[in-house]
Amino acid sequence: MGKQVKTAITPTREENYAEWYQQVVRASDMAERSPVRGCMVIKPWGYAVWENLVRELDDLFKATGVQNAYFPLFIPLSFLEKEARHVEGFAKECAVVTHHRLEKDADGGLVPAGRLTEPLVVRPTSETIIGDAFSKWIGSYRDLPLLINQWANVVRWEMRTRIFLRTSEFLWQEGHTAHATDTEALERTRMMLDVYEDLSENYLAMPVIKGRKSPAERFPGAVDTLCIESMMQDRKALQAGTSHFLGQNFARASGIRFQTAQETEEFAWTTSWGASTRLIGGLIMSHGDDDGVILPPKVASSHLVLLPIVRKDEEAAAVKEYTQRLQHALRDVRYNGRPVRTAVDDRDIGGARNWDWIKKGIPLRVEIGPRDIANDSVFVGRRDKGHRDKVSMKREEFIARLPELLDEIQLSLFDRALSFRKAHTATIDDRGDFYSFFTPENEEAPEIHGGFVRSHWCGSARCEEEIKDDLAVTIRCIPFENEPVEGKCIHCGEPSGERVIFAKAY
Amino acid sequence: MGKQVKTAITPTREENYAEWYQQVVRASDMAERSPVRGCMVIKPWGYAVWENLVRELDDLFKATGVQNAYFPLFIPLSFLEKEARHVEGFAKECAVVTHHRLEKDADGGLVPAGRLTEPLVVRPTSETIIGDAFSKWIGSYRDLPLLINQWANVVRWEMRTRIFLRTSEFLWQEGHTAHATDTEALERTRMMLDVYEDLSENYLAMPVIKGRKSPAERFPGAVDTLCIESMMQDRKALQAGTSHFLGQNFARASGIRFQTAQETEEFAWTTSWGASTRLIGGLIMSHGDDDGVILPPKVASSHLVLLPIVRKDEEAAAVKEYTQRLQHALRDVRYNGRPVRTAVDDRDIGGARNWDWIKKGIPLRVEIGPRDIANDSVFVGRRDKGHRDKVSMKREEFIARLPELLDEIQLSLFDRALSFRKAHTATIDDRGDFYSFFTPENEEAPEIHGGFVRSHWCGSARCEEEIKDDLAVTIRCIPFENEPVEGKCIHCGEPSGERVIFAKAY
Repeated sequence: MGKQVKTAITPTREENYAEWYQQVVRASDMAERSPVRGCMVIKPWGYAVWENLVRELDDLFKATGVQNAYFPLFIPLSFLEKEARHVEGFAKECAVVTHHRLEKDADGGLVPAGRLTEPLVVRPTSETIIGDAFSKWIGSYRDLPLLINQWANVVRWEMRTRIFLRTSEFLWQEGHTAHATDTEALERTRMMLDVYEDLSENYLAMPVIKGRKSPAERFPGAVDTLCIESMMQDRKALQAGTSHFLGQNFARASGIRFQTAQETEEFAWTTSWGASTRLIGGLIMSHGDDDGVILPPKVASSHLVLLPIVRKDEEAAAVKEYTQRLQHALRDVRYNGRPVRTAVDDRDIGGARNWDWIKKGIPLRVEIGPRDIANDSVFVGRRDKGHRDKVSMKREEFIARLPELLDEIQLSLFDRALSFRKAHTATIDDRGDFYSFFTPENEEAPEIHGGFVRSHWCGSARCEEEIKDDLAVTIRCIPFENEPVEGKCIHCGEPSGERVIFAKAY
Repeated sequence: MGKQVKTAITPTREENYAEWYQQVVRASDMAERSPVRGCMVIKPWGYAVWENLVRELDDLFKATGVQNAYFPLFIPLSFLEKEARHVEGFAKECAVVTHHRLEKDADGGLVPAGRLTEPLVVRPTSETIIGDAFSKWIGSYRDLPLLINQWANVVRWEMRTRIFLRTSEFLWQEGHTAHATDTEALERTRMMLDVYEDLSENYLAMPVIKGRKSPAERFPGAVDTLCIESMMQDRKALQAGTSHFLGQNFARASGIRFQTAQETEEFAWTTSWGASTRLIGGLIMSHGDDDGVILPPKVASSHLVLLPIVRKDEEAAAVKEYTQRLQHALRDVRYNGRPVRTAVDDRDIGGARNWDWIKKGIPLRVEIGPRDIANDSVFVGRRDKGHRDKVSMKREEFIARLPELLDEIQLSLFDRALSFRKAHTATIDDRGDFYSFFTPENEEAPEIHGGFVRSHWCGSARCEEEIKDDLAVTIRCIPFENEPVEGKCIHCGEPSGERVIFAKAY
């Protein structure tokens, strides 16, 4: 990078956050748009983050007794129609399969043929098709609880898409459970939200606020939707996971009945909960800086890259040998209970090599040159620090301290994100202040506004909607840790018993 | 089981193999038909086998330098049309998306709306959409080789479906690589076949024959298709994995060009290779007996189940405590580099409990009763032996020998399958013998025939087709380990330089 360019990414976050995001994703080589409308291609560097995230989350699920299974991609139209609010919520954005083969027309072009008697919808979510299976699997209270998760792709035909954050096809997991009592189902709903909190905070380094959605923001067909909300660096909220208490709505729709211990028949109480590839968008927006992505070590595609530096041909053999020896030694190092993931980049492309890895967000860059070898040391750059801020470490010390170094980065990212959220969260009881909080100060950066607000809300859908119409601000959640406090609705002034979190959101 | 019933599964393999297979799958609780035509629901006990298989295969891929990525579910019609033979091969069985939302019609019913300008095909395989990405990712020989794999669901609208073996939707992996030379692409094609052989033989305990397909059996658009073929217990062949050398066909279709070191421009040489959930069907049909499924330990959903036996209430506490202590001790035991997977079943349902686990095919059943506790021992039944053939082992010895026991079962399943294949493989040079080999001896079991035949083939598509028409027998492969030997085509009598494998197939 020449002196005239100050950051690796143009524009900076402050100049144009939305465009910064696109450029950061591109520069990281994590994903790209595909020629299929609204669908993305997840490239190896991005997919590896997903694989790591999946492995961690899957372990967390299994520790609570959840088992994986797999259900059909296609949902018959008649299934979707079983729950009225559910179909209403998804009908506007469904990919519909209507034919089962292709035929040549008169011009020799291919056209759909073999019309299906009942159209199939590509699953936008699987409550109805999984509910059908549950209705067969469950006969008695002895079959409960039933705790199932599926890792799958789903399709929601989004009109405005943004890579990772909102795509027509995305990867996710959807958990579906059935219980004999509402209490147990509610406990499970909350338990899975805690799992998402654990994933977000301890693996993705994204601090979250836990709470419940307002009725208007509930999952279509749910009795209660719990969520975790995280603040991005443009101060908007990202919903990082949701857990739904479905009451007996879907059990009624799908006929999930069971015989109780008292030999009466009842509908089961069900839950569903999901998290998706949008979490990758979340971690990019939480941690990235104006030089690119910063990957939290626990889910980083690789933890460190070895960068051999050879300026003269006669140094090559020694540098190569030292690099290989270090790479070999690192195979025995474990971080977070798994082997450390080491990349090696011996391309001869000058300073661009270092910048490539900065833009990819690898936690540690380890340079190895003749001088380092002479000292039996390495030259280490941390991605969470400035790109010139490198330290020399003895080779043995580096190997021994590597897990600790990675933990330090993991924690520093979390702390930074938490401080950012705290700095941009306000408690506001005045309507005028509320409106100006969400109004950008600077016309050249219309996206930058105040952040999260804790304000009183009377509970009416009307106030909620009017605020949304005025400011594009929604109630992100009614936080669990709220203390009851008397006040007046920020919009209408009617009495309110607690404050809720308002924010602009993805 | 009363004395009148001799086996847990009715009918037996000999009585009706196809029906035996359906019943074995049902009794194992591994999967079931779904209400969506031709699609299956993979239940937890079956999905766990897939998860184990995926983990092993994924490690084998990565050890050869392959990286995972993810590409869109949908393929624009125009992409599929780019390779003429390719589209011809898949056009007859495609799920076609034509609309992107649902609307209420006059009667209030939902109908597809929002017609797409270009229909989308749900991927039956991804050569064309991945080829498009490769054409953007590859510019120079320095970008090669490119070694990508995707784990995904695919859809082929099959008319006759059978669970795991042939379903409209199935799970698979598809590898796609691009190379600078044909030699390197051919080496990769062969290398991935070797990986499938490793998976089949050393993890699924399914012995395979490696070879190449005849031109008529090639993947649509490939220059050469390599495969592994395994014999099922009805002596039919199951193709357990394929690896295709695509030459420059798909590179031409998708425009995958690169600049060589000599600064000329060339099309890349590509390969693709895949294995799917049909492997689960293969292992069921390879190892299952008339009591149900037998799972090879390396991919078994669980390795062993602890079955506490309590006949009097006052024994309950001691048995429970001993079981828990054993379960705890087993947490430290590793098999095949991973923790041993232990199930516990304390249901009070009499002998049905033992039979449930036999039908599920768990490698080891471990009974724990008061007498065992008094001896500090356990009572162990191996699934590969008769259900009454159990041995008492000291607890410590059992824990110490567990990995060895599992290995013994793994090897005994492989040996049994290999002996079976050898016993039902013949070398035949006489046309009459060839025809009678494939003619069932017993009219009541029309499926049971001779098995695999090594016979001469002149190389003509006509002979191949006539044999197929007469006997429903196809050339499974031209084996690699063939020694050249002069002979005459089993069908037309023309000269032939080697024998090929003929068989009925799934």
